[in-house]
Amino acid sequence: MQCAIIFGGVSFEHEISIVSAISLKDVLDAKITYIFCDAKREFYFIPTKDIKSKLFSSGEYKKYPKLILKNGGFFQKTLFGEKKLEFEFAINLIHGADGEDGKMASLLTFFGIDFIGPRVEASVISFNKLLTKSYAKERGVKVFPYEVLRKGEYKTKMEFPIIIKPLRLGSSIGISIVKEESELSYALDVAYEFDHEVLIEPFIDGVKEYNLAGVKGDKFIFSIVEEPQKEQFLDFDKKYLDFSRTSKVQKADINVAILDKIEENFAHIYENFFEGSLIRCDFFEVEGEVYLNEINPIPGSMANYLFEDFTSVIKSLSTNLPNKMNIPITYQYIDSIQKAKGK
Amino acid sequence: MQCAIIFGGVSFEHEISIVSAISLKDVLDAKITYIFCDAKREFYFIPTKDIKSKLFSSGEYKKYPKLILKNGGFFQKTLFGEKKLEFEFAINLIHGADGEDGKMASLLTFFGIDFIGPRVEASVISFNKLLTKSYAKERGVKVFPYEVLRKGEYKTKMEFPIIIKPLRLGSSIGISIVKEESELSYALDVAYEFDHEVLIEPFIDGVKEYNLAGVKGDKFIFSIVEEPQKEQFLDFDKKYLDFSRTSKVQKADINVAILDKIEENFAHIYENFFEGSLIRCDFFEVEGEVYLNEINPIPGSMANYLFEDFTSVIKSLSTNLPNKMNIPITYQYIDSIQKAKGK
Repeated sequence: MQCAIIFGGVSFEHEISIVSAISLKDVLDAKITYIFCDAKREFYFIPTKDIKSKLFSSGEYKKYPKLILKNGGFFQKTLFGEKKLEFEFAINLIHGADGEDGKMASLLTFFGIDFIGPRVEASVISFNKLLTKSYAKERGVKVFPYEVLRKGEYKTKMEFPIIIKPLRLGSSIGISIVKEESELSYALDVAYEFDHEVLIEPFIDGVKEYNLAGVKGDKFIFSIVEEPQKEQFLDFDKKYLDFSRTSKVQKADINVAILDKIEENFAHIYENFFEGSLIRCDFFEVEGEVYLNEINPIPGSMANYLFEDFTSVIKSLSTNLPNKMNIPITYQYIDSIQKAKGK
Repeated sequence: MQCAIIFGGVSFEHEISIVSAISLKDVLDAKITYIFCDAKREFYFIPTKDIKSKLFSSGEYKKYPKLILKNGGFFQKTLFGEKKLEFEFAINLIHGADGEDGKMASLLTFFGIDFIGPRVEASVISFNKLLTKSYAKERGVKVFPYEVLRKGEYKTKMEFPIIIKPLRLGSSIGISIVKEESELSYALDVAYEFDHEVLIEPFIDGVKEYNLAGVKGDKFIFSIVEEPQKEQFLDFDKKYLDFSRTSKVQKADINVAILDKIEENFAHIYENFFEGSLIRCDFFEVEGEVYLNEINPIPGSMANYLFEDFTSVIKSLSTNLPNKMNIPITYQYIDSIQKAKGK
């Protein structure tokens, strides 16, 4: 198995993506080619043996070959022309903007590169938390009530305590729990730093949270269900470390009925939309009911630690990527007009 | 005003895009640079004086310079390097797939090219008719009831007559009206040719349909409201001709209350989502209530015929394109880890 890992990108989660990419070296049994997208959106080919986080923070990565993304792949300039970077498929591992907002999916689809990752629609739906809510409801999956505020708005209809999130970010960035009115405007300003829209939801102290990852090739492969450890909620520093996780985790202690509901809800979210990607869905459980919290279509370090045999999951997914639709371009209409004109 | 028109693309509406692009030559008072995306997704620079539909159906366009899309713009190879194509902004005029599904928006955003057209989120929401419905409801805009079927499914819960549409196409391609059960499976097969999912809605004979186009720069500019002429519904051949329209149309004869409702619903759909684009919303009216039928985020020939002063609309839009968010990449976290490690 020979794959390219694309990471970096112009995103608040740029550094998280670097950590995530490096962590895969130890857990994915494959010949990995690293493609780094820097802050200027230039691509670089980073040799696997050299990869370490300091390479990027120091700017040292610039000594490696630049790559051009165009029809058919990533190309490296040579003395006599250019050489295509060889790999069977790419893994889109750019977290947050550029990676999860549909841009990288678009680029790879447009230029005809096979890849693991959410397609354009699936990216947009999971990146924007309001669209996630509508989508989940459309699929019969329960969600917590919510309200969206826009920059300049400082009044909520929700009852405290609430949780405030930038509408379009992951990784806990810009998130606050607000217990009373007096804390509201500061928390909103923090979130507005990252997005012009924010999502407000009720905050339920001690709510059970369960994470499940999975893929669908010819059939579903589910990970174990994890109950993430948290103090109130994971802050950015903790989540950051979370992105480099490679050691296996403890299976959550839940009953079969809840597990079934979680897997069933995951399938409702995934099917006919997320094909080609390994996603992690985060659920809440309240009094036996399961609610979708969010969809991570490119989870940190691909949630490798939730799978018993991570490499075989990636392999199964890579051999079941969505088919490209064949769109014939025949010029039938233009030809018929030409004929009608007698030309 | 100097603009690039990007047209073509790998789409069932490839030819429509060509016709649409050519029609703008006569109605947009600007220095136009034409960029053609062919069936292999190669870009070509077509001189404005030479443009005609036969150039593309004959393959003759290949004699013109190829362009490379990369950071900062479209580039043409020269003897001594490369030259950037100069324009103030691009207009994304690729109808259907590639153009309206978020791919072109992603490419232009990623590579930092200013453009008129829906951004990634807005593209995805308007391209997928199910997502359009959820989005409209979220914005408080009424829609007709609906059902989604997937390839292999041939049973509907809806009452006849119904209208069947591929979930992700525009321009009336693959659409059928089904009056009774016996016609259902054939109509579904036609739609499944174009998408693995189809949308079913009630068909209301003689329903009033109203089209309104508009943009928002510093304020809204609305077009006149048109009541499209149709026999049952526009078929592809008629819509095809529709895409080359340049002559002004008759204002629909509607009362102020309905006009207000249409403009108000348009604004609910547009604001904080469609900025940067000129869209046309198609509405139904039933007993004084207004329902969204669909959103055309890149309408044929930019719906120029609905505006009194089309050029000034484009100008106003081009000077009010959405701001890019500034995302600083500081390596703060990686640096702090390095420090903690004592490196």
